[in-house]
Amino acid sequence: MHRIAVVGATGYTGFELLRLLASHGGVEVGALTSETYAGKDVGEVFPALAKVVAGRLRKFEPAACEGAEVVFCCLPHRTAMNTVPGLLDKGFRVVDLSADFRLRDHRIYEQWYKTGHICPERIPEAVYGIPEIYREQIRGTRLVANPGCYPTGAILALAPLLRAGLIAPASIIVDAKSGVSGAGRKAALDLQFSEVNERFKAYGIATHRHTPEIEQELSAAAGGEVRVSFTPHLVPMTRGILSTIYADAAEGASAGAAREALEEVYTDEPFIRFMPEGAFPNVSQVAGSNFLDIGLTLDERIGRFVVVTAIDNLVKGASGAAVQNMNILLGLSETQGLEHPGYWV
Amino acid sequence: MHRIAVVGATGYTGFELLRLLASHGGVEVGALTSETYAGKDVGEVFPALAKVVAGRLRKFEPAACEGAEVVFCCLPHRTAMNTVPGLLDKGFRVVDLSADFRLRDHRIYEQWYKTGHICPERIPEAVYGIPEIYREQIRGTRLVANPGCYPTGAILALAPLLRAGLIAPASIIVDAKSGVSGAGRKAALDLQFSEVNERFKAYGIATHRHTPEIEQELSAAAGGEVRVSFTPHLVPMTRGILSTIYADAAEGASAGAAREALEEVYTDEPFIRFMPEGAFPNVSQVAGSNFLDIGLTLDERIGRFVVVTAIDNLVKGASGAAVQNMNILLGLSETQGLEHPGYWV
Amino acid sequence: MHRIAVVGATGYTGFELLRLLASHGGVEVGALTSETYAGKDVGEVFPALAKVVAGRLRKFEPAACEGAEVVFCCLPHRTAMNTVPGLLDKGFRVVDLSADFRLRDHRIYEQWYKTGHICPERIPEAVYGIPEIYREQIRGTRLVANPGCYPTGAILALAPLLRAGLIAPASIIVDAKSGVSGAGRKAALDLQFSEVNERFKAYGIATHRHTPEIEQELSAAAGGEVRVSFTPHLVPMTRGILSTIYADAAEGASAGAAREALEEVYTDEPFIRFMPEGAFPNVSQVAGSNFLDIGLTLDERIGRFVVVTAIDNLVKGASGAAVQNMNILLGLSETQGLEHPGYWV
Amino acid sequence: MHRIAVVGATGYTGFELLRLLASHGGVEVGALTSETYAGKDVGEVFPALAKVVAGRLRKFEPAACEGAEVVFCCLPHRTAMNTVPGLLDKGFRVVDLSADFRLRDHRIYEQWYKTGHICPERIPEAVYGIPEIYREQIRGTRLVANPGCYPTGAILALAPLLRAGLIAPASIIVDAKSGVSGAGRKAALDLQFSEVNERFKAYGIATHRHTPEIEQELSAAAGGEVRVSFTPHLVPMTRGILSTIYADAAEGASAGAAREALEEVYTDEPFIRFMPEGAFPNVSQVAGSNFLDIGLTLDERIGRFVVVTAIDNLVKGASGAAVQNMNILLGLSETQGLEHPGYWV
Repeated sequence: MHRIAVVGATGYTGFELLRLLASHGGVEVGALTSETYAGKDVGEVFPALAKVVAGRLRKFEPAACEGAEVVFCCLPHRTAMNTVPGLLDKGFRVVDLSADFRLRDHRIYEQWYKTGHICPERIPEAVYGIPEIYREQIRGTRLVANPGCYPTGAILALAPLLRAGLIAPASIIVDAKSGVSGAGRKAALDLQFSEVNERFKAYGIATHRHTPEIEQELSAAAGGEVRVSFTPHLVPMTRGILSTIYADAAEGASAGAAREALEEVYTDEPFIRFMPEGAFPNVSQVAGSNFLDIGLTLDERIGRFVVVTAIDNLVKGASGAAVQNMNILLGLSETQGLEHPGYWV
Repeated sequence: MHRIAVVGATGYTGFELLRLLASHGGVEVGALTSETYAGKDVGEVFPALAKVVAGRLRKFEPAACEGAEVVFCCLPHRTAMNTVPGLLDKGFRVVDLSADFRLRDHRIYEQWYKTGHICPERIPEAVYGIPEIYREQIRGTRLVANPGCYPTGAILALAPLLRAGLIAPASIIVDAKSGVSGAGRKAALDLQFSEVNERFKAYGIATHRHTPEIEQELSAAAGGEVRVSFTPHLVPMTRGILSTIYADAAEGASAGAAREALEEVYTDEPFIRFMPEGAFPNVSQVAGSNFLDIGLTLDERIGRFVVVTAIDNLVKGASGAAVQNMNILLGLSETQGLEHPGYWV
Repeated sequence: MHRIAVVGATGYTGFELLRLLASHGGVEVGALTSETYAGKDVGEVFPALAKVVAGRLRKFEPAACEGAEVVFCCLPHRTAMNTVPGLLDKGFRVVDLSADFRLRDHRIYEQWYKTGHICPERIPEAVYGIPEIYREQIRGTRLVANPGCYPTGAILALAPLLRAGLIAPASIIVDAKSGVSGAGRKAALDLQFSEVNERFKAYGIATHRHTPEIEQELSAAAGGEVRVSFTPHLVPMTRGILSTIYADAAEGASAGAAREALEEVYTDEPFIRFMPEGAFPNVSQVAGSNFLDIGLTLDERIGRFVVVTAIDNLVKGASGAAVQNMNILLGLSETQGLEHPGYWV
Repeated sequence: MHRIAVVGATGYTGFELLRLLASHGGVEVGALTSETYAGKDVGEVFPALAKVVAGRLRKFEPAACEGAEVVFCCLPHRTAMNTVPGLLDKGFRVVDLSADFRLRDHRIYEQWYKTGHICPERIPEAVYGIPEIYREQIRGTRLVANPGCYPTGAILALAPLLRAGLIAPASIIVDAKSGVSGAGRKAALDLQFSEVNERFKAYGIATHRHTPEIEQELSAAAGGEVRVSFTPHLVPMTRGILSTIYADAAEGASAGAAREALEEVYTDEPFIRFMPEGAFPNVSQVAGSNFLDIGLTLDERIGRFVVVTAIDNLVKGASGAAVQNMNILLGLSETQGLEHPGYWV
């Protein structure tokens, strides 16, 4: 049994980690920290975990994680960068679910997150935690920058198409729709049920902080600077992200070639599934699971690809990817604890 | 045109009042106060009202209401009792949507609301604002204590049955289910979308503060003390209250007699509707409207009545009743501004 | 009082018409037809309308509409074209809510709707019923082809920008999201609650039948053929359409110029509202109302406009527009019966 | 590996079985039958199961189940009794999820289900499949009548209280609220999203077919005939049943005694959890899991117990209980495949 610790265990990603790890079989949960609920049992805070996950929440200090082989840091961005260096210095391997170590260039971080980065010198040792792209680098690192939910849904679809030169880099539009859990577990008037239910809106248009993360990885794939229009929307549901992605077909590109480019890269990937031709995924089919499902068409009338991906923002978009990264770090089977299907039709 | 004012205009009952008054035709909106949004236009706070309701929000002071014939007080309980006396002293007629003047006995208020009542001497001049019961008294008062949402759904069904001696007073159970807007417009973790959606719970079991309000009015109807089991539940929807009410049939009582007792009292009431025999209401059929719909059966196997009522908690359960009371105070047709149907099938 | 009739009164657009006309004040409802519910009272089929709208449903025959000055045809496409000619021949003026007379070129209709058009010779007398564009033509016609819900949300935003030459016609993408009532009132497994709730999907990608309707009107505005990428999505909510529209800025186009182009055309339009700069609409703010709300930005990094519009698919996207068209046909104030705000914040 | 078969695999209980069995570890799925989807792969019908559950659906015939040690029959009531005898005759052990073999007295079945029972002679060999009550009998049977979802939530709470003489049998009221998946996977107008969303209603008042099932088991517990008021309601959510149960306290009964009576019976039960004193369960905390959570209070003012239970209607209320029963039949650990927590806070 490998021991792990969770820092910031009482948000949605913390809960989801505990849910997944409860059935993992190869790890045991050590320290769980929470500033808000310190002193309570996990089952009091999350009645769903009563009788399943034991453990008392405590306030964070690096020593609390003693004995952990991997520490999951589930703190919000801006807070994580205050905590992660101390953990690394104590010798822990860290999977950080925040945005603080995802962007290679701290100036871009500072521009989009409107805050100084307090430890830009630690960024180089971080590996961007999409195993389907950076598996080997993850294996050897001590700091995984677990990817953002929206970027996961966009990058995995677009990177192979850019690498294959099948789409026009300047034409990319990512119109994404997320369930409300993506906004985190916190009191806020605009997240109140009656302010979300029976509603639908776009937000962060042309300004959302996941934009540079998407652009960084797509630029790497394209071998040149890529800029994207990225528009997130809030869907009155709890989980899931659907990304509807538009890109002009490059000269001579076909639907078949695009499908092949994706299949070539992903056929052996355990968590990427292709929809049959003409079919597109619904977020429900990945709810609770670590799958990313993908559908694709080329609108021949117009010469534009439409690619649709679906993930569970809390699983493949956060805690599931974190477990996948942990499995790699610990040398376990990459799929352990993540093989179960989504929970709905 | 009669001028009115709304104190605390930016909660859900405030919005609903403005929505209803926008189509009323007989009143004009004067002062609108808000401590949070003072200085903003109504249309900025509620984009639904842009181009329809003009007016700038201001901080409350009694003088702000100058010229108003009726002042709606939409402040929370405990706060309202600090404000209403000043308005009455300035000569305004007040429709108070809080609980502060509903209970005749201030000791009961203090016991259930866990706070001292700061002006028990003003309670006697308040009239409990269910027009179907207290229409004449409302006409002559300066202070209407607008009834609670849950009590409205329970009292209107049970009072005539108790008066007619058709049910056993000691056996009454009110199992009520409310949409989330009933909790008010405020930031709170347990009202967050992801904490309400796909969920269902009971709350305030045996302790909810609407209990004494129901008991006060049922005791008046029964001519003796009545105590009820009252259990509210939170439904993942925005509007509506469904009350499922159980009461043992009194010796010799029949379904027909019960139906007659209700129809005798309510046939000419514009806002009470009976479902056909064997049918029961859905909250959707009253959404947005001032109707209370009612269905009833006697389970002959067991000798127990089951009565179901549906209201929109924000209309008949709050702002619609307030407009109905205002119409009575101003000598207008009681139905003016309230004749429209619900907005869904 | 003008008398109207509704053919196919028991779908969602039929209900919505009855709801709106109940508070109109200038018309009385004559014949109401329904093949499914003939013989029942309106209030039995729609309990929300009990005590408000009287009338017994009957099977359709043209003679049933006797005395009506305007007949609303709420039949599905393909069915409407069987009924409308008979009504016109009897001398009725018709507002047809189906798609059957919207496309000027019946071959395009036949291609997208996969059916022959049985009366292409009647198409020329139809006027496409967007009053903000075709007000004068509507005034003089006997047949209004009431526009589709998705096209309304797209055309009103894009037509002025195309006319002003501010966007690149070949770059237009309309990513639209609709509530479920848009699918109509019918039993279907994929519309079942448990198959829609907590889900989100795209559908009809590159094949949806509203595409040619959007293209027809945008081509007219641009003075040349325009093709658009149109992707509709299904949102787990009942009402509303949000359209997120992307278009590359033409050489020299600015956000200010785009805003001016829209304001110049729409400032005096009673049902078009602009969001403040930097703000974008939520479907909730138009729910139940006839407004189309619009927000716009130019993503300067990329040179692409993002325009967002919100409508209630059943009101401005169907029955509200139909009432607006009726008002024009009858010479009434165009806003009569439509001035009320949406019913939620 | 034990082989099982599922007859009627493409409804919600069929899906849920496949989801649970996918992570079970001790069984392999043999035949899967479906009349509607025969010839398709499971992953085509349920994309959530693609890459996880392999298997082609086929039409049912008893021979299809060859090699199965347990056959799950997920057919609707009235249909199951046509199929189960043939399976028993072939020697299969059957867990039947329908109501057809739950009621010991076929005349009561016939009265409530309004149909003749075609094989009343097979009823005696069925064991009512609540392991917490009939564990020993299940072990030895060939036919488990898997309990109804509503009865599960009511019986497990009430049986120990009746056995201990703590409540008045004539006073029991079960006011239950269910998610929509309980209605099954089928096209029906009244189950359409727009006919359920933002709605709430009671149905089957005093007539629901789960009533005699509850009464049968409560009568057994009380040692005398018990009749209950049972009112189910439809909640706009997909999964979960909350049961709010009222019963008058027997002479001298206390909250402490009631809690003890339940704990004495259930302390060692792996799937029953007690809420802390003063707390009551939310359906979300059992969603996706096999737990039944229970909270209890005695309203001292009135002398009435209020007990609240929460289950997932598709798991503990159907397919989870079925797997639990299968584990018993196969001599496996009763909790195998069912230890995971619910999927949400």
